[in-house]
Amino acid sequence: MNIDVCFTPNDYQAQSLPAHVAVVIDVLRATTSLTVALENGCKRIVPVETVEQALAQKERSYPEALLAGERQALPIPGFDLGNSPFEYSRQVVLGKTIIMTTTNGTVALHRASGAEKVYAAAFVNNAAICNALRQIGHDIVVLCAGTAGQFSLEDGLCAGLIADRLSDCCSLSDRALATQAMYRDFRLDIKGRILIAAHAHYLEKIGFGKDVTFCMQHDLFALVPVFADGIISLQSAGR
Amino acid sequence: MNIDVCFTPNDYQAQSLPAHVAVVIDVLRATTSLTVALENGCKRIVPVETVEQALAQKERSYPEALLAGERQALPIPGFDLGNSPFEYSRQVVLGKTIIMTTTNGTVALHRASGAEKVYAAAFVNNAAICNALRQIGHDIVVLCAGTAGQFSLEDGLCAGLIADRLSDCCSLSDRALATQAMYRDFRLDIKGRILIAAHAHYLEKIGFGKDVTFCMQHDLFALVPVFADGIISLQSAGR
Repeated sequence: MNIDVCFTPNDYQAQSLPAHVAVVIDVLRATTSLTVALENGCKRIVPVETVEQALAQKERSYPEALLAGERQALPIPGFDLGNSPFEYSRQVVLGKTIIMTTTNGTVALHRASGAEKVYAAAFVNNAAICNALRQIGHDIVVLCAGTAGQFSLEDGLCAGLIADRLSDCCSLSDRALATQAMYRDFRLDIKGRILIAAHAHYLEKIGFGKDVTFCMQHDLFALVPVFADGIISLQSAGR
Repeated sequence: MNIDVCFTPNDYQAQSLPAHVAVVIDVLRATTSLTVALENGCKRIVPVETVEQALAQKERSYPEALLAGERQALPIPGFDLGNSPFEYSRQVVLGKTIIMTTTNGTVALHRASGAEKVYAAAFVNNAAICNALRQIGHDIVVLCAGTAGQFSLEDGLCAGLIADRLSDCCSLSDRALATQAMYRDFRLDIKGRILIAAHAHYLEKIGFGKDVTFCMQHDLFALVPVFADGIISLQSAGR
């Protein structure tokens, strides 16, 4: 098994790769929030790239769906939910379909959609993702969603935790080794030190510091969100 | 002062950046070897991208020049020198012009040539480069040359040492913070652990293990190689 990491979605060239599992990471906050939504009983998440696509999907396929997402980290006018994990409570999402458009995470998911299997990972479900990757046994390519096409430190650190946890059974590329080393350097004070990173700093400044702290927590949920046929849902127990 | 790091030369988009100093790193081995050549009294180094350009430059401009470089890390047939720092002794290079073509380093230098100033950095001259960057006071963009367009861990680690040393006077981008963290994790055993990286491993396998060990040494030479008008030479004492 090999593990590689794409520092940004643009680094990912699926067509030149052998069969592999793609793992999409957008720690702040899309893959964290969608994991929380699934934990709280949301039926499915439909990630789309634009506000227009979100509105069209709701009209065409899911009239009862909640519209969710952000632009510049802020809620989209007229939408039901923003991108904060605290909004995705059981009361709000149980049994619901959520159509979600975020600046980076949903774009990265669609870019990864050519892989054999696509997982959505964050710190909050990291151990579960690693266990699933171990069982599958395919080569792994981790896509850091980043921010506006640029590398985001928190996504690299989360990729590094996956690389570190799988280093006993995987061969690590230079990029995977690099993220593993980043993570090892940060791990003793990841919640404190992450605030030096651009996006965490920005979120704190606009009042989402609590979100940042929440999103850096490890292994809260034993969930493996899978993206297939345009929909994110929980991997069934049998797989 | 800001410091950013491009994980590969392709990440570098000079035209979208304000005035800055570019620092090109190809630890294994181009920027290490050219620093050794300058330490040993070589007059100038002319980096070119192809073997054909090397031959043409020699014929047109520098008939006495030594031809140097590598392809797949091996010497180029008919050339005077390969890419090992041990070949660039005082006896061989004193007073000479060297026309050099390497797979990654010379390509990265040319890509950086639009910057206000271009330095060639390695571990062996890292402290001197950091001192020069401090004095100049411009924003800094570090270009990791990588290997065949891919990120190379050793270049990231060297960028991280620069970021770490300048962190008292510079604002670090997420990419600079990432390389700083990589370096901090590796620093206690960088010579031993670097052999897990792809290019270091390859060089060791084909008999250049001694080169790898040499290239990971820090601060052997107080030299600042500058690339300007197509030529690498030493920064004069006055600047």
